[in-house]
Amino acid sequence: MTKITLKSNIRKRVEKGHPWVYDNEIDKIEGEYSNGDIVDVLNPKGKFIGRGYINDNSTIRVRIMTRNPKEEINREFFERRIKRAWEYRKKVVDTSSCRVIYGEADEMPGIIVDKFNDYLSIQTLTYGIDQYKDIIVDILKEVIEPKGIFERNDNNVRELEGLEQSKGIIYGDFEPHTIISENGIKMHVDIENGQKTGYFLDQRENRLAIKDIVKDGEVLDCFSHTGPFAMHAAYFGAKKVTAVDISEHAIETAKENAKLNGLTDKIDFVCANVFDLLREYQEEGKQFDVVILDPPAFTKSAKKIKSAYKGYKEINLRGMKLVKPGGFLVTASCSHYMSKELFREMLLESARDARKTIREVEVKTQAKDHPYLWNYEESLYLKFFILNVL
Amino acid sequence: MTKITLKSNIRKRVEKGHPWVYDNEIDKIEGEYSNGDIVDVLNPKGKFIGRGYINDNSTIRVRIMTRNPKEEINREFFERRIKRAWEYRKKVVDTSSCRVIYGEADEMPGIIVDKFNDYLSIQTLTYGIDQYKDIIVDILKEVIEPKGIFERNDNNVRELEGLEQSKGIIYGDFEPHTIISENGIKMHVDIENGQKTGYFLDQRENRLAIKDIVKDGEVLDCFSHTGPFAMHAAYFGAKKVTAVDISEHAIETAKENAKLNGLTDKIDFVCANVFDLLREYQEEGKQFDVVILDPPAFTKSAKKIKSAYKGYKEINLRGMKLVKPGGFLVTASCSHYMSKELFREMLLESARDARKTIREVEVKTQAKDHPYLWNYEESLYLKFFILNVL
Repeated sequence: MTKITLKSNIRKRVEKGHPWVYDNEIDKIEGEYSNGDIVDVLNPKGKFIGRGYINDNSTIRVRIMTRNPKEEINREFFERRIKRAWEYRKKVVDTSSCRVIYGEADEMPGIIVDKFNDYLSIQTLTYGIDQYKDIIVDILKEVIEPKGIFERNDNNVRELEGLEQSKGIIYGDFEPHTIISENGIKMHVDIENGQKTGYFLDQRENRLAIKDIVKDGEVLDCFSHTGPFAMHAAYFGAKKVTAVDISEHAIETAKENAKLNGLTDKIDFVCANVFDLLREYQEEGKQFDVVILDPPAFTKSAKKIKSAYKGYKEINLRGMKLVKPGGFLVTASCSHYMSKELFREMLLESARDARKTIREVEVKTQAKDHPYLWNYEESLYLKFFILNVL
Repeated sequence: MTKITLKSNIRKRVEKGHPWVYDNEIDKIEGEYSNGDIVDVLNPKGKFIGRGYINDNSTIRVRIMTRNPKEEINREFFERRIKRAWEYRKKVVDTSSCRVIYGEADEMPGIIVDKFNDYLSIQTLTYGIDQYKDIIVDILKEVIEPKGIFERNDNNVRELEGLEQSKGIIYGDFEPHTIISENGIKMHVDIENGQKTGYFLDQRENRLAIKDIVKDGEVLDCFSHTGPFAMHAAYFGAKKVTAVDISEHAIETAKENAKLNGLTDKIDFVCANVFDLLREYQEEGKQFDVVILDPPAFTKSAKKIKSAYKGYKEINLRGMKLVKPGGFLVTASCSHYMSKELFREMLLESARDARKTIREVEVKTQAKDHPYLWNYEESLYLKFFILNVL
């Protein structure tokens, strides 16, 4: 086995459990290898730290898959990992539709598998894991028994890894579209062309968390996308919901979802820029019982955090002003780089500027089928706050 | 109105919204006052910051009740505050039994009111709020319409404020004992002699959060007290629950609770020191699907944080070792001084020492009827983690 020895002057991040070895952390490499091969990672004293796959095309040179020196990376390894991942989901969530494998957090770096009813949507985003795709697909068929599997490898990070993009059915014969049930609400999922693997399952529990506060109220749902929060608000008894998104296509799908759930009369759909609309509503003196802000990530890099902060502050400040006294602001950020601490600081600043007193009702994060591996902070990305605005 | 001007060289804590003015933050006092009187607090430039009650016997000299210069502290003020507090609870929790008023977090410093079925348990812990006790009791009768109100002012912080301790029925004619329903489970509440106001309502939502993970499993509930977590685990389908507490009286009540819920066969009650028992179980090689650690506060002051940290680490390290691979550690701290960051650091250290990989399943805090006022960090005290131990 090829051996990778880490430099002695680096932080003990990898030794403490982080699965990524960066190229500038490597002191020496003993032995031959090709990209995608399994290698052993040693600490500067030569002690085994972990085993994973290597790729010279990535600055993340090695991704560790096991810390057990006796554990080989073979079919049995993936069987154990996939079964463990599935058992965990069966324990903690409704598995009719859920994330089955969440990459590093399931100690299977680089792979995402989501389940939508009887169909799996799979992404293999690194060169190393892509070598095992056929084995993994085989095991998924055995363990989960899906009717079909769709590959959503239409992601440009694959090219950086030295892989081609690809997309299509890899098992079964099916229409890549299904209607899932989320907390009892029906939602169209476009497995072929929906965002990422087809639908954002990570807010499932957060959508349920708005149940009590929306009842009988007027709700503004911003960045509504295909309408999951709006649908939940209407379903949970909101008097009136206004759902806003800039994408006409998203609004069209949201309307279909409303029809599906018999909620068309309860929801007004507005195709608009949220920033502009919040300003307009503020000028008009509009007020809501609940304002929901679930924007796309304003930054996907640490560099752009300042402008992202500004964006988050603008919508949250305006959002707070639109909440009736005693009402609620529901606000989320799905950018890993907008840390919880920073997000909270931004909310405190917004409250001060808006002259509002804020009480925390509930703080949540991504759903349980997207667990946060503590040694891998990148696996935590979703911040979700329900705030009482006095 | 007597005017209190703050020093110019202090942090802007009070101006930013914190309700407490310490005696060493005061520059000058203009006008006469007696303890308990309402005073105005001004910033160093003479601008109104807030209005609250003063007490020379406390290092917290003034507790601010309103930031609105036009708002007088009178019966109408308390009516507005109490109605707002009650409306909030009716929105977010099951009000059959709940915290009705949570002091500073409801902008009514010094008063706690809990509701157990038709009875209220009330604490007025500061000299200032105690002056309004009769008015507040009157309003509570009107707004909540309880059958009785019990005063639980048997708390020695009252003496530091210059008040006597007292305890007893102040309205109605009733036995100060009731059986409440928490998430469908019946629990005896001793309003007269139970801890604090009679029962810890603050873990209600956390107890519900263990539902999925305890099913069919063997559960160890440490610091079980009168057994609420044990009862929930058994009720939610655990195969077997072991409930441990050092207090014989607590164990006796826990047994009564088990009887009440028909769960006696499911729960073994052990009267023992948890620290010792965890060590024993570890030596015996015992393993559980779920280990629950809900200890009393190991510190009530910032000074003793080091020894508290050590105590938390000991039980959590041992607790993790007792969890079967893939099982769950449910761990809480109710000490404000053990911050969430510190608690998490302790858990990470414990995991490293126990050679366990930890995944975060859910992080919660005190229940929604104990809201966290962001400008008053003292209102956040409960940390609750559900961890998947790999």
